[in-house]
Amino acid sequence: MVSAQDRRWLAAAARLADLRARPLSRPNPGVGAIIVADGRVVARGWTQAGGRPHAEAIALAAAGTAARGATMYVSLEPCAHISARGPSCADLTAASGLARVVVGCGDPDPRTAGSGIARIRAAGITVDQADCPMAHQSLAGYLMQRTAGRPHVTLKLALSLDGCIAMASGESQWITGPEARAHTHLMRARSDAILVGGGTLRADAPRLDVRLPGLESQSPQRWVLTHGAVPEGWRALPAPDAIHGVMPHVQYLFVEGGAGAAAAFVAAGLVDRLLIYRAPIIIGGGRPGIADIGLSRLADAHGQWRFVRSQRLGNDGLEVYDRSPCSQASSPP
Amino acid sequence: MVSAQDRRWLAAAARLADLRARPLSRPNPGVGAIIVADGRVVARGWTQAGGRPHAEAIALAAAGTAARGATMYVSLEPCAHISARGPSCADLTAASGLARVVVGCGDPDPRTAGSGIARIRAAGITVDQADCPMAHQSLAGYLMQRTAGRPHVTLKLALSLDGCIAMASGESQWITGPEARAHTHLMRARSDAILVGGGTLRADAPRLDVRLPGLESQSPQRWVLTHGAVPEGWRALPAPDAIHGVMPHVQYLFVEGGAGAAAAFVAAGLVDRLLIYRAPIIIGGGRPGIADIGLSRLADAHGQWRFVRSQRLGNDGLEVYDRSPCSQASSPP
Repeated sequence: MVSAQDRRWLAAAARLADLRARPLSRPNPGVGAIIVADGRVVARGWTQAGGRPHAEAIALAAAGTAARGATMYVSLEPCAHISARGPSCADLTAASGLARVVVGCGDPDPRTAGSGIARIRAAGITVDQADCPMAHQSLAGYLMQRTAGRPHVTLKLALSLDGCIAMASGESQWITGPEARAHTHLMRARSDAILVGGGTLRADAPRLDVRLPGLESQSPQRWVLTHGAVPEGWRALPAPDAIHGVMPHVQYLFVEGGAGAAAAFVAAGLVDRLLIYRAPIIIGGGRPGIADIGLSRLADAHGQWRFVRSQRLGNDGLEVYDRSPCSQASSPP
Repeated sequence: MVSAQDRRWLAAAARLADLRARPLSRPNPGVGAIIVADGRVVARGWTQAGGRPHAEAIALAAAGTAARGATMYVSLEPCAHISARGPSCADLTAASGLARVVVGCGDPDPRTAGSGIARIRAAGITVDQADCPMAHQSLAGYLMQRTAGRPHVTLKLALSLDGCIAMASGESQWITGPEARAHTHLMRARSDAILVGGGTLRADAPRLDVRLPGLESQSPQRWVLTHGAVPEGWRALPAPDAIHGVMPHVQYLFVEGGAGAAAAFVAAGLVDRLLIYRAPIIIGGGRPGIADIGLSRLADAHGQWRFVRSQRLGNDGLEVYDRSPCSQASSPP
């Protein structure tokens, strides 16, 4: 039985992963673990930079003997496979003295997939599996790679009220204000790779790095959507579909435009999340943020996106939409 | 002295005007009055259909002897001029036995402008003047006519996430869902006149009436932005600037597009409020909601609009922006 309080602890473990492990845990999933005894946290852990140690190993080491009889909340099923870099978390957990483990999301990795939980249960520890939305969300990139062989894709657009990314003249600095731009840098720092279209690269030569104090080292891989040659430090992606397979260690891809790249990813059904930074300005007759996506009927545009949330960022708004679960799913080619 | 509690009563009187008097009070301002004794409402009133009786007359008649020693909160200064349709509210108030009157907004009508308050004070009644934002807002159309000789103008846009009002083919039904469209009908019912561009009239032949049960009779005047001939039941406006003078009894004008009319009003600096119904759809390469507004520098687009609020309407969002107080003011030509 998983109680409402259990779900709150799981959500806290997932948030720990989301805020502390992402994206430095790459190529491993960012996982969070919280050990609770008598309603109090006795230890926490999250996947460390480079992917090891794992969250459970950190939390169990921190708990020491306090783990005896306690409950561990972990966002992803503990791994069952032994690595050269350490023992499996299932074995560590089995030997921990814990009374109970609550798991937020099963691991689709065939080396674990259920055997992590089985090995812990075999040690006499109760294991409850919850289907925790926060855990799934915090593992979105990992799960997308495991189930679809591609990264989770966020399309970012910075638009005027009337949907423009620039004036007709091309002038585009700035649409949004400093708060929205700083937020974009934070989103970059949480991504493993960033992509722009060939036209944007040629026109703006964007640095696409992270310019937030303390996060400069988190600048992600840089990709450009092009069939042509690319400058040093950039990688070429010939088409959106090519994200299947060519970026196996990229859990989160952040597509920053321009209009052609945005349209190509939308048309290919390869955008999982939309981040729209909306400036309170009217440009009127400017350059649209999304080029032709080959829509043939207006009805087909509906039902694709689900509103998640909105917030203010200085004078601008941020709107977040996720691909609707009812929309056409994208599968590997 | 006007207390915080006084301001709350004034805001309630203004809301009464906004919800009950608008727009049926035309051509008179929609005013609300609340009479309070010992912290309790003893009577309420608002401007009746056609403009008479006034809010104060209704409230004082309802209060009867309960007005003695009470306080009346009224959103607009009581009128000082005697009409064939009844005595002035200042005279009625002076004879009411009220101890105090709190006024939310002075009346710029030269027949009243201060003399309403003076006449009440001359009867020994305390009069406090507050500068109540809700009162000003509930009188926006009246004040705009009095101070600028034109209606208050709301531009409504129903847009996709990427700022389109139609596909490239022209297909435009529907961008937004039923909740947003019903909300638009409510906004029409609160307006005195509606305007569309010539292209929209020719292409869509919109009815632009109010299709809400019980509100059908509130369908406003219909105007079209054109130099040409107009169908029966429509009036022609040759240019946005022509709203000065030609619609003296229109306090609230609702501009419904299309892209050319929207751009013309924005470019003329004649939009006071933006209502953007935002559907969670991407059209991509569709028809933009606002045509060229002659913007020469991106910096000039900033500082024009102030975010007021946003809300969800079914699957759609509604964003409200007001002209920024710092933006270039529009004055009579």
